[in-house]
Amino acid sequence: MPIAKAYSATSPTSGLHAATIERREPNANDVEIEILYCGICHSDLHQARDEWKDFMPTTYPCVPGHEIVGRVTRVGTAVSRLKVGDIAAVGCMVGSCGDCDACKAEDEVYCSKGATFTYNSPESDPGPVTLGGYSQSIVVQERFAFQVPEGLDPAGAAPLLCAGITTYSPMRHWGVKKGQKVGVVGLGGLGHMGVKFAVALGAEVVLFTTSPNKIEDAKRLGASHVVVTKDPDQMKPHAWSFDFILDTVSAEHDINPYLGLLKRNGTLVLVGVPEKPLPVSSFQLILGRKQIAGSLIGGTAETQEMLDFCGRHGITSDIELIPIQKINEAFDRLSKSDVKYRFVIDMASLNQD
Amino acid sequence: MPIAKAYSATSPTSGLHAATIERREPNANDVEIEILYCGICHSDLHQARDEWKDFMPTTYPCVPGHEIVGRVTRVGTAVSRLKVGDIAAVGCMVGSCGDCDACKAEDEVYCSKGATFTYNSPESDPGPVTLGGYSQSIVVQERFAFQVPEGLDPAGAAPLLCAGITTYSPMRHWGVKKGQKVGVVGLGGLGHMGVKFAVALGAEVVLFTTSPNKIEDAKRLGASHVVVTKDPDQMKPHAWSFDFILDTVSAEHDINPYLGLLKRNGTLVLVGVPEKPLPVSSFQLILGRKQIAGSLIGGTAETQEMLDFCGRHGITSDIELIPIQKINEAFDRLSKSDVKYRFVIDMASLNQD
Repeated sequence: MPIAKAYSATSPTSGLHAATIERREPNANDVEIEILYCGICHSDLHQARDEWKDFMPTTYPCVPGHEIVGRVTRVGTAVSRLKVGDIAAVGCMVGSCGDCDACKAEDEVYCSKGATFTYNSPESDPGPVTLGGYSQSIVVQERFAFQVPEGLDPAGAAPLLCAGITTYSPMRHWGVKKGQKVGVVGLGGLGHMGVKFAVALGAEVVLFTTSPNKIEDAKRLGASHVVVTKDPDQMKPHAWSFDFILDTVSAEHDINPYLGLLKRNGTLVLVGVPEKPLPVSSFQLILGRKQIAGSLIGGTAETQEMLDFCGRHGITSDIELIPIQKINEAFDRLSKSDVKYRFVIDMASLNQD
Repeated sequence: MPIAKAYSATSPTSGLHAATIERREPNANDVEIEILYCGICHSDLHQARDEWKDFMPTTYPCVPGHEIVGRVTRVGTAVSRLKVGDIAAVGCMVGSCGDCDACKAEDEVYCSKGATFTYNSPESDPGPVTLGGYSQSIVVQERFAFQVPEGLDPAGAAPLLCAGITTYSPMRHWGVKKGQKVGVVGLGGLGHMGVKFAVALGAEVVLFTTSPNKIEDAKRLGASHVVVTKDPDQMKPHAWSFDFILDTVSAEHDINPYLGLLKRNGTLVLVGVPEKPLPVSSFQLILGRKQIAGSLIGGTAETQEMLDFCGRHGITSDIELIPIQKINEAFDRLSKSDVKYRFVIDMASLNQD
């Protein structure tokens, strides 16, 4: 079996350190990718530290990473879309049943049998669980590898595979378009992509934040207004005016004031996952035929569409590039939201170990 | 001004008793209707007893009633759709701004300036508030009067104007159709109409109830299955199977188990109004791209469409016809949900006072 250098966690408190892992030999439908860049998602940190142990316990050693961009090094005999030398990407999934309604619709993330995620999902080849992108290489089915448009910076493109598709998918699913007014709640890794996409789709974009120090950056990203949500006077003028609000905040927060800002038939979509149930005012929903929905990453069809959209509009993530030797420091900073707006690991640094 | 016999409440605890009210002379756009039947909605009881005082306090004397069917007795010079002698209906609204997006879409119930409701809404003509259908006659703008299809029993048609449109509108808005699986939560005035509509739209219908003694009736109404919700074993087989669930329950209840029964992209719509905010699991929403929405009655376009649909499918409400002298007894029974499924007042009884 091919061997790859990687960084793995060996316990909830171990931090990440250099390791060696096995990858499978590419099968007929597989693509082998030499990883050039891998984004750092908050999920990586939760999983490495076993902070989701109640519903998705971590199997150690754990190699996180699902915002992967690299170069194709080998392809199986049945592979048709990708060839050796292509710049390709892998996101949060590497497998699904292929037979259910969701898979047939290329919405594999909602696979009725459960998608195989890029790390910490049960897998037998080589197993026991999938190992992610904090490594030199990965082998995946072609279905779960995407073409990265020429001209996109591959490092800035890496976060598109999770932060990007997670915010693009709901905007497309609920039909965000030119002439609409769109709100984005929170300006982090997800929120800053949400602003970029909504602007590129032609919407008037308002950013909601608790931090006055994010105003300037939000405007640079294309928001026409910034509302500091601690001040109710700033919320009021926007009552009943939004077609769509994307809420990217995972921390506990009251969503009812945002429901009041939606127009008749407006939709609020949650992509962050607050731990406790959210209290929802049924009055607010009923009085304007409003909706609250959730959205999970995105399927393969939408992921390729999103990458192509980014290619046409020159959209990448704002990133801070780090060598993998700084991963534990980056995790600590990420846990304090101290990054604008995504750490990306320069995987060439693995060779320095 | 024309005078009409009516039944009104004069205080939260007065109950309803005989009274005389004024109606306006019909203006150019107005229709005068001699009321034949008026359904009794739970809202009538709440408003008469001032149980909504925190957000919609009652102005006394209060004449409830917004499920009105009668005969046109006079029309203004500009009236074109209705003529003297027609069987016509009036629902929950008698006015709106006419200019906002909602009004232009004939979705007047969501009027941005607030619709004028059929009772207890501020009005100057004659004022101070609108007086509802527990009376001999009503005068309304033609826009808010509907044609009742020939062949529909006018007494059974009365509840269509609130219980009917409230359940029909969301099914149409979210596209309930043949081949879908639809759940209806609660078998009361709203729920029994919901079952009838979903069946007529071609869906497979499952009724959710806490009462095993409603099983037989739900099946008579067309439900293919009945789930007694106290038994988790009855819920399980339906996981991830519903396209649409209509929740008609106003009492506090946990909606999260129903979210688990929705398919990917499924929608749960609330039409009952629980007093407290509902805790909602954002996980449930996100894992299946599911939605929770609210829906309020319906606009004029959908109301006429609903009546025409009922005409084609022979749909009316199951009713218990009472003379108006039994109104207080009916309110008491209604507060204990002791009715199958709607009380309707035979307004001819007003002449017996």
